[in-house]
Amino acid sequence: MSDQLDALRAQLDDVNLKLLELINERGKIVQKIGEVKSKSGQKRFDPVRERKMLDIIAEHNKGPFDTDTLQHLFKQIFQLSLGLQEDDNRKALLV
Amino acid sequence: MSDQLDALRAQLDDVNLKLLELINERGKIVQKIGEVKSKSGQKRFDPVRERKMLDIIAEHNKGPFDTDTLQHLFKQIFQLSLGLQEDDNRKALLV
Repeated sequence: MSDQLDALRAQLDDVNLKLLELINERGKIVQKIGEVKSKSGQKRFDPVRERKMLDIIAEHNKGPFDTDTLQHLFKQIFQLSLGLQEDDNRKALLV
Repeated sequence: MSDQLDALRAQLDDVNLKLLELINERGKIVQKIGEVKSKSGQKRFDPVRERKMLDIIAEHNKGPFDTDTLQHLFKQIFQLSLGLQEDDNRKALLV
């Protein structure tokens, strides 16, 4: 029984590290989007684009998490990513 | 400029779908852990194990997100996963 638990925990650690890598990869892409947008004077936050991303989550969700739960989590990830862009802007102002 | 934005957004959509898949994969593993633990009468929530997972996040974080931000996000993912086990228990009680 304990071996089975250990094996599942090893799987979980592996998934956690993949998630960590992907969340940071996402952060880098959002930083690049922020740079492109700031050069062309576009606003960082685009509610239509955010809605579209949430719709894609809903379309592709196969569970076990329900779509509401996942959309709530993704909204937080979106918010954190926008926070990264703000940090970049603040650094740019300080240069 | 718009092509560049489109390309970055396509990358972001791709990362979102991978995240969605991994979060759900994580949910399935946690459900299995819940089953194993419930058979052996162990408690679902293990603060020592959670601390260890958060330490692993800290060790492997290469940014751009800071470790505090990521640990806060992961704690929420852990919480949601425990919620899945509760749903399973509730269903089992209803059978």
